[in-house]
Amino acid sequence: MIKQVLVGVICGAAVLTVGILIGHFGITKTGSSAPSWVTDVTKDVDESLIDKFLSEVDNIQIQENLRELTKVPHMATTAGDEQTVQFMLKRWQDPETGLDKAWREEYLVYLSFPDPTNPNKVTVVSPSDTVLHQVREKEKNYTSDQNDPEVVQPYAAYSPAGHPKGKLVYANQGKPSDYHLLNQTVDLRGTIAITRYGGAGRGAKAINAAPYGVIGVLVYTDPLDINDGLMSDTSETYPHSWYLPPSGVERGSFNGQYGDMLTPYLAAKEGTYRIPVENITGIPPIPIQPIGFEDAYILICALGGEAAPASWQGAFNCTYNFGGPGFKSTSAFNDSDVKMDIFNQEKIKNSSNVMGVIRGSVEPDRYVIYGNHRDSWVHGAIDPSSGTAVMLELTRVLGRMVKQGKWRPRRSIVFGSWGAEEFGLIGSAEYTEQYFAKLSERTVAYINVDIAVFANATLRASGMPSVQNVIFTAAKQVAAPGLDSTSVYDNWIRYSNRTSPNHGTIPRMGFLTGAGSDYAAFVHYLGITSMDISYTYDRSKTNARIYPAYHTAYDTFNYASEFIDPGFLSHQAIARTAGNVLIRLADSLVLPLNCSDYSESLDDYLNTAVSLYEHKLKAWKISMEPLKHAVASFRSAAAHLDHVIRTSDLAKETPLKVRKINDQLMLLDRAFLDPLAFPDKYAYRHVIWASSSAGKPTFPGLADAFASAESSGHSRDWDKVHFHLSVLSQAIEGAAQTLLDVI
Amino acid sequence: MIKQVLVGVICGAAVLTVGILIGHFGITKTGSSAPSWVTDVTKDVDESLIDKFLSEVDNIQIQENLRELTKVPHMATTAGDEQTVQFMLKRWQDPETGLDKAWREEYLVYLSFPDPTNPNKVTVVSPSDTVLHQVREKEKNYTSDQNDPEVVQPYAAYSPAGHPKGKLVYANQGKPSDYHLLNQTVDLRGTIAITRYGGAGRGAKAINAAPYGVIGVLVYTDPLDINDGLMSDTSETYPHSWYLPPSGVERGSFNGQYGDMLTPYLAAKEGTYRIPVENITGIPPIPIQPIGFEDAYILICALGGEAAPASWQGAFNCTYNFGGPGFKSTSAFNDSDVKMDIFNQEKIKNSSNVMGVIRGSVEPDRYVIYGNHRDSWVHGAIDPSSGTAVMLELTRVLGRMVKQGKWRPRRSIVFGSWGAEEFGLIGSAEYTEQYFAKLSERTVAYINVDIAVFANATLRASGMPSVQNVIFTAAKQVAAPGLDSTSVYDNWIRYSNRTSPNHGTIPRMGFLTGAGSDYAAFVHYLGITSMDISYTYDRSKTNARIYPAYHTAYDTFNYASEFIDPGFLSHQAIARTAGNVLIRLADSLVLPLNCSDYSESLDDYLNTAVSLYEHKLKAWKISMEPLKHAVASFRSAAAHLDHVIRTSDLAKETPLKVRKINDQLMLLDRAFLDPLAFPDKYAYRHVIWASSSAGKPTFPGLADAFASAESSGHSRDWDKVHFHLSVLSQAIEGAAQTLLDVI
Repeated sequence: MIKQVLVGVICGAAVLTVGILIGHFGITKTGSSAPSWVTDVTKDVDESLIDKFLSEVDNIQIQENLRELTKVPHMATTAGDEQTVQFMLKRWQDPETGLDKAWREEYLVYLSFPDPTNPNKVTVVSPSDTVLHQVREKEKNYTSDQNDPEVVQPYAAYSPAGHPKGKLVYANQGKPSDYHLLNQTVDLRGTIAITRYGGAGRGAKAINAAPYGVIGVLVYTDPLDINDGLMSDTSETYPHSWYLPPSGVERGSFNGQYGDMLTPYLAAKEGTYRIPVENITGIPPIPIQPIGFEDAYILICALGGEAAPASWQGAFNCTYNFGGPGFKSTSAFNDSDVKMDIFNQEKIKNSSNVMGVIRGSVEPDRYVIYGNHRDSWVHGAIDPSSGTAVMLELTRVLGRMVKQGKWRPRRSIVFGSWGAEEFGLIGSAEYTEQYFAKLSERTVAYINVDIAVFANATLRASGMPSVQNVIFTAAKQVAAPGLDSTSVYDNWIRYSNRTSPNHGTIPRMGFLTGAGSDYAAFVHYLGITSMDISYTYDRSKTNARIYPAYHTAYDTFNYASEFIDPGFLSHQAIARTAGNVLIRLADSLVLPLNCSDYSESLDDYLNTAVSLYEHKLKAWKISMEPLKHAVASFRSAAAHLDHVIRTSDLAKETPLKVRKINDQLMLLDRAFLDPLAFPDKYAYRHVIWASSSAGKPTFPGLADAFASAESSGHSRDWDKVHFHLSVLSQAIEGAAQTLLDVI
Repeated sequence: MIKQVLVGVICGAAVLTVGILIGHFGITKTGSSAPSWVTDVTKDVDESLIDKFLSEVDNIQIQENLRELTKVPHMATTAGDEQTVQFMLKRWQDPETGLDKAWREEYLVYLSFPDPTNPNKVTVVSPSDTVLHQVREKEKNYTSDQNDPEVVQPYAAYSPAGHPKGKLVYANQGKPSDYHLLNQTVDLRGTIAITRYGGAGRGAKAINAAPYGVIGVLVYTDPLDINDGLMSDTSETYPHSWYLPPSGVERGSFNGQYGDMLTPYLAAKEGTYRIPVENITGIPPIPIQPIGFEDAYILICALGGEAAPASWQGAFNCTYNFGGPGFKSTSAFNDSDVKMDIFNQEKIKNSSNVMGVIRGSVEPDRYVIYGNHRDSWVHGAIDPSSGTAVMLELTRVLGRMVKQGKWRPRRSIVFGSWGAEEFGLIGSAEYTEQYFAKLSERTVAYINVDIAVFANATLRASGMPSVQNVIFTAAKQVAAPGLDSTSVYDNWIRYSNRTSPNHGTIPRMGFLTGAGSDYAAFVHYLGITSMDISYTYDRSKTNARIYPAYHTAYDTFNYASEFIDPGFLSHQAIARTAGNVLIRLADSLVLPLNCSDYSESLDDYLNTAVSLYEHKLKAWKISMEPLKHAVASFRSAAAHLDHVIRTSDLAKETPLKVRKINDQLMLLDRAFLDPLAFPDKYAYRHVIWASSSAGKPTFPGLADAFASAESSGHSRDWDKVHFHLSVLSQAIEGAAQTLLDVI
């Protein structure tokens, strides 16, 4: 009986256990089981996926991308450009490694070209009209690349056509102060000025000259500024090194604002209103033409007049004189004029952006945009194809993961291959104009990788302060090229660092204040959190303004693979770093954007502003208290949001709480927009980041308004300072409001 | 044995069942059970709660609110205004029926007042300086209300002070065409013009006059325009009826733009930059003063000169002559002048908004804003206290449900009691300037109920077309006042209807094109989907421009309860309708905003524009194709989003998919903003809804630009038409983009 009871109890217990197990695991609970989407919406970035991504980024693939992209010159809207459009589309539509969707977007944009049948000429002509010297029309051939018939003659885009003839003068960098000084010695009316690159914008060299009566401008690159003084193409310059050969000429756009110039604030479509050409501002009012230093040497060393100041001297082995005006009597050019024959033509041409997307799984209405321009001046191996080669490697690796069903980002990723950047960031600007509302509402961040590799020394990154942290995280996970046990981050901090109150010694990031690449429209017009990433120089080893073949016929695959990044390891490091940032922005549950780092930068700007301006402003009864209050509000709101993020287990919270925080982070830069902040700057609306002529490390509009009021002394200019101070303070207060508890 | 086996099997089965039950119900599944927030995030609006709300809205409570609010005059920034601030705060901070939080927000704003120690005077003076007639300085007393020392003397806010004296002329409504015609008969230099309200904006009557040399303007309300011709206070006008007594004077703001005039686009805080007073535009350049028709009758009937045209004649029993200039020789005023002594003073005063919030449970970062101004000219029973009394009843009913824990809305509700509306919508405008970023990002809709009840006949609603549907839904659930078996909706459709291609015969909604109340900054500056709701006239029964006591000392509790809404049933109907809309906007899973209804209105506007303009535009080589394309894109995108909403079971979808759709709906109006669309209109940025002088039922900027080009014939004005057409087309295309699949 005891045994029977025992067996009964044991059996009963066993049956009960089976029952419990069946009940618990075998039957789905109705009404309380988790919907299938719960796991998806609470998922965070997958570190093993990032490891896999990093390991798959391949330097040789990048090299082959670059080889393909640089086969022919691909200046905007040329046949070569169309070839790259087709190439991008083919790659992004590839069934095994392509994106979800890829297409082209076209704009009818205002460009400027030399006349192929009537090349621009610069000559020295004697009083009897004999041509004593003719400036080289095309760069000298070293590899076969320079002989390609599609290599465009060096020219200044948007320079007017014209045939000025006059005495030559040397005007240093063509800054206002240069012409002012020169005019004290020489009557500039009717002269041709020769200037060197640097110090002022390209077009500014002509714009600054015209008020003095100068009728034409030449511009060249001095070996001092680009070649560390070297000049000889028999041993020193490319193809012997990365240095610019004597006949090399930097082409460029000579306009002053970004986007299509005929359709300000509107997408340049058929039927779009176009302003009259004569209403365009910011372009040279007089002809200007770039030439090589080979010719500049001949011209400058023959100039008469007094010796120019020491700061005007370049690397030529002669004294740079102002010019008599004109050449010295002892030179062969005595009494001769310089004549420019410029035949540039403006045309409305069809330019394409190539777009590709990977659709987001959980938040498809949040976009991470990654872009670079596609057009070059000539073959453009470094500018911009190094960046495009990197982008194509990213899309190959990510596209394959998507096609294989191994991955789909939480948010959507948009890739943009912009057209006509070289003429003024036109493709990206038109894109932001066409899709203004959609992009403003949904874009988490824009990543720009234009020239991916300037040189092999160190990472360079610029952007809003809020992206600092995600770039650091990414850079710590990537090995520095050629340095197995050092990360890109650890290498970077050795080249460029600063002390942060919050973080101690960290790499120094730059800010995106100007319009140097396609981030401009995203930063200034849309107020989208942006960054620009590249590998760059060891500044202790060269003083070159930029890599020497920039915008010349020598920026070729051979140049890039021989002298810029042999083995393409720096390209690979950029692909890994930028790709890592991209994945983190697309996949992180909470956006990896840090508002306290933003606050640190505002604090710095405020401190500088107070020490530079407060005393003088008080004299004009303009108080800086509203600005101080605003920055303090921002600091405290940012610290609060940071605290909420750090102390919450957001994977367990409602997805709408996470979304709320992400929206606060995403929209932070939008809060700094004010279309009235910079009445004199086209399409600059972000009150914190803008170009500035005052050159102070502080709020750009305040610095410029202050400088202008201080120089004029007019009370209406001090009113403008006060007005801008109010705009700035209220924008910062408004931004702080968006970081507080939402209600 | 069989029995034992049987017992064993039965026992075993029973134990198993117990086990299954324990396993299924007794033990929480880890990892797969639904998080507690799943139910919350998928919850839709609760119809039984709406029923409860409707039943709790009480007409007597509204009546008592009104009694309290109108005890004393409460012109902006006066002691009476402060009393209402305290009253609102007390109610919204009530522990049993208050809101989650209530507070005040202060602005230092530019106002204009008469000098209490030196009242404005208008007199008729003989050539020997004898005063022959003096215009009444204060309105006649009928109830004790008009004797309150705080009743402000009738005046024209922002009229300059001054002492013009001259011959009187009658200038009809003071429109440009009126002065033009008058000037053909009379030399207007040095004259004083008397005008009647209507036809032109208040300030415009003086602005239009000044170019002709007119030195002062009087304005009065003709009994024709307000009293259906009645004039006698012994039997016909208040307190015998709702009609205006002869001494009643409409006060008002005579400025032309909204918001604080010294701080355009900036919140008017201490330290904010203020423009110089002389830079203010849109205010009267010469003194202007409103008077009662009692005095206007004496002045106008004594005027000499020719008879004015028939359309200029009013209800007085005399011929309205132009004026000789001046009085006729047969009158007692022969050869006399009219003299104005205006002592208005501008002051910067502290004005308060009172704010209150109910925090949202699921999406606290989405705001439904409900507001009305608090300031009046005198007691302001109808304008604005009828709306405030309704708002207080809404907050009482909703606040109690919140305090009792019975309800918390999905989204946050923000209540705003705006200050200084009467001076130019100042409180609401400053609020939108201060919180521009936050409000732009998060506001679902703005509901304005200013004058809740003009009269007892029918609902009147204006707004963006996307709110039509939710207003209809709400109006169908509310009984029309005094008509038990008829809904507000069914009553409305009898008074005002139209045929919609999608819906058949429906009530006719208005659009918010101008700046008549506090919705202006929300619509035009922020691009927030807005609506304005009230109860109004049977237009077959009166021609009154507005309710006759408008802006006079007769707009009292007595007037409202005797003649406007005895029993307060219309107030109750508005509270129920607007409250129902409010709850639906706050609680619906999918926002009840319909983009196809928006599309229907754009179609109407397009058809009108094509038929009015296409032929002439073709002659100027301006194509309307981009606009047609844009409206077609919008139509198809809206239909698509509508289809997605209708065919999805969104309660089962991820909450982020619902949020995506809601963001598309919420941000639709933001996509229509372009700060460059109306360069000549302050703070108008919404390309579809704006004030327009052309008076055509189509896109306002296009209509105005076309009218201006047609009148001038200048090609640069046709360029402006083309420019605006591009702005408009691209904004609509951009809006359409936001409604498509997001990627």
